Amino acid sequence: MGKGRLEAFSDGVIAIIITIMVLELKIPHEANLAALRPLIPVFLSYVLSFIYLGIYWNNHHHLLQAVRQVNGRVLWANLHLLFWLSLVPFVTGWTGENHLAALPVAFYGIVLFCAAIAYYILSRVLIAHHGKDSTLAKAIGNDFKGKISVVIYALGIALSFVNTWLSFILYSLVAIMWLIPDRRIERMLSS
Amino acid sequence: MGKGRLEAFSDGVIAIIITIMVLELKIPHEANLAALRPLIPVFLSYVLSFIYLGIYWNNHHHLLQAVRQVNGRVLWANLHLLFWLSLVPFVTGWTGENHLAALPVAFYGIVLFCAAIAYYILSRVLIAHHGKDSTLAKAIGNDFKGKISVVIYALGIALSFVNTWLSFILYSLVAIMWLIPDRRIERMLSS
Amino acid sequence: MGKGRLEAFSDGVIAIIITIMVLELKIPHEANLAALRPLIPVFLSYVLSFIYLGIYWNNHHHLLQAVRQVNGRVLWANLHLLFWLSLVPFVTGWTGENHLAALPVAFYGIVLFCAAIAYYILSRVLIAHHGKDSTLAKAIGNDFKGKISVVIYALGIALSFVNTWLSFILYSLVAIMWLIPDRRIERMLSS
Amino acid sequence: MGKGRLEAFSDGVIAIIITIMVLELKIPHEANLAALRPLIPVFLSYVLSFIYLGIYWNNHHHLLQAVRQVNGRVLWANLHLLFWLSLVPFVTGWTGENHLAALPVAFYGIVLFCAAIAYYILSRVLIAHHGKDSTLAKAIGNDFKGKISVVIYALGIALSFVNTWLSFILYSLVAIMWLIPDRRIERMLSS
Repeated sequence: MGKGRLEAFSDGVIAIIITIMVLELKIPHEANLAALRPLIPVFLSYVLSFIYLGIYWNNHHHLLQAVRQVNGRVLWANLHLLFWLSLVPFVTGWTGENHLAALPVAFYGIVLFCAAIAYYILSRVLIAHHGKDSTLAKAIGNDFKGKISVVIYALGIALSFVNTWLSFILYSLVAIMWLIPDRRIERMLSS
Repeated sequence: MGKGRLEAFSDGVIAIIITIMVLELKIPHEANLAALRPLIPVFLSYVLSFIYLGIYWNNHHHLLQAVRQVNGRVLWANLHLLFWLSLVPFVTGWTGENHLAALPVAFYGIVLFCAAIAYYILSRVLIAHHGKDSTLAKAIGNDFKGKISVVIYALGIALSFVNTWLSFILYSLVAIMWLIPDRRIERMLSS
Repeated sequence: MGKGRLEAFSDGVIAIIITIMVLELKIPHEANLAALRPLIPVFLSYVLSFIYLGIYWNNHHHLLQAVRQVNGRVLWANLHLLFWLSLVPFVTGWTGENHLAALPVAFYGIVLFCAAIAYYILSRVLIAHHGKDSTLAKAIGNDFKGKISVVIYALGIALSFVNTWLSFILYSLVAIMWLIPDRRIERMLSS
Repeated sequence: MGKGRLEAFSDGVIAIIITIMVLELKIPHEANLAALRPLIPVFLSYVLSFIYLGIYWNNHHHLLQAVRQVNGRVLWANLHLLFWLSLVPFVTGWTGENHLAALPVAFYGIVLFCAAIAYYILSRVLIAHHGKDSTLAKAIGNDFKGKISVVIYALGIALSFVNTWLSFILYSLVAIMWLIPDRRIERMLSS
């Protein structure tokens, strides 16, 4: 089974998720700076979520490059990842509207945590399908970055009830860590 | 006529349907757990609908794999299927907002019933186009799963006026039955 | 310049237009049949618009099949067509919400009229690019169906101020005329 | 790394942005011309934004044609461009709703300015990846049109506090300048 439609469908879903988030930026009725002020936290959480979805799209792109074929299990592991990503606009809007209150920030972390787990499952299902000695398996390796992300998210969720800014610093830390593109797969493929 | 654009268009429509459903999860204005409680039935019907659309996408993917070419009739049979799927967000939202009241649950079943019929028509039109001795025709066979699904949906619709939980158990039963991916086509193609 | 991205972009835009129309079906707060009644005209105009966009997608699909390459003029002629199609959800919603009042029905016709003109321009620009002796030019021919559609739309717009049902019968007539797929191009390509 | 998914993802995002802007055309509750009047500025800014996004899609299409492969930096430069384009519906709606008031017009210009900078960065990152002697580098050249656009936008932003019509004339001037398709790349590729 080819991977073409899996990529196309994932591209479509991520493109829509990344774009509908902008609908949360409700157009103000007045034309002054004061009318924009309540939008600042909404805008900031939009930027962070845009970066997160960009990271997932980039990593998905990298991951699928080393993939040769897919099966039914891969399709569902991929849909599972898209499910958690589809909740990003909701937690983004909730966090933004409540000016980084504790509970929305915790839920933001939970969705990121579940998406990270789903990405990990997807990579394992792909390795199981390609074999432990495949280029893909070697390229992913022990996935240290994936595992440490999950730990930092868990810490961020716990700390959201102490100080939501600490949580956001932790979430952003993971984003920065991933912004450095995942060269493992590129390196393996070119070697 | 190639099948590429048919797949791309279907991917696009299903990607949008699956994603706009999340807009029904209205962002609460308060940042506490009580504000999330009314969202629970909306969330549950979102999860079920996400799984249903995932099943249709997966089966569509499997079905189209054995397809060699398409014609005008296939394009319309496919649009007919997409039409019923496009109503899933509406019945999902209506069911979720009314806490599984009888009529919305019945309509939910009607939309699933019509989508199942539309999928059946699509597979028949494809077989008619490829010939009764084609790989596709053999792969689909007598489509027992498709037929039994329609019967269970009809039962679920009738039972919605008795007990809506019974309907949801029946609808979920069909989902579980289909979650086991349709290996018929995969098997035929590889043999 | 290849036609791949032109097709992909058009597929994306039409997929979104056809799907966001369903958002006009506002979810009722009550769970009874009376709550659905005001949605009937909205639903009917949704069905008609879905069929219209389906027709345009199908014809676009047929038209692009005979196309070998595109240029900047083709890209813009295509965007011009997509612009008018993008207004279909607006006129659909306006017509449905006002129970087929004269002005919305007239505007519905105007948008269909402009889309038909835009489609005609696109086919002419494509012929100019491929040459008068190309397979494409022969396949499209004098485009009788395209021209008669424009005339019927104009008649429907004029009649909307007399009787909106007459307009809808005329608009539906064009739809039925086009539902019979455009076999000209298929025939030319296979000969 | 192939450019296929980069194109597909960008097509998806631009298709969605261009289409969701039409949702700002709120359906009026009355069926008369007076009900349409407040929509005129919204419609005009929709038309202008549609043309702008069409220009970006066309230029993106032209730019990517000369591209052979992409890397992680290109993916992010592209996402950066899509980020600014995703804000077009917001500034379009704000400008339209406030009848071309000074601040929204200035913000409209800022978003266009940032998108132009992002497009410039994308073209530089692509040149850096392909080498200074590549067809791509020669095709883009010193990018006079790109640089002059940025200057005109800056002027338009400044003038929005004097006369918003002057700003709109300047923004439209850039649009007209770009509507003449970028033949540089086409010329280079065919030579």
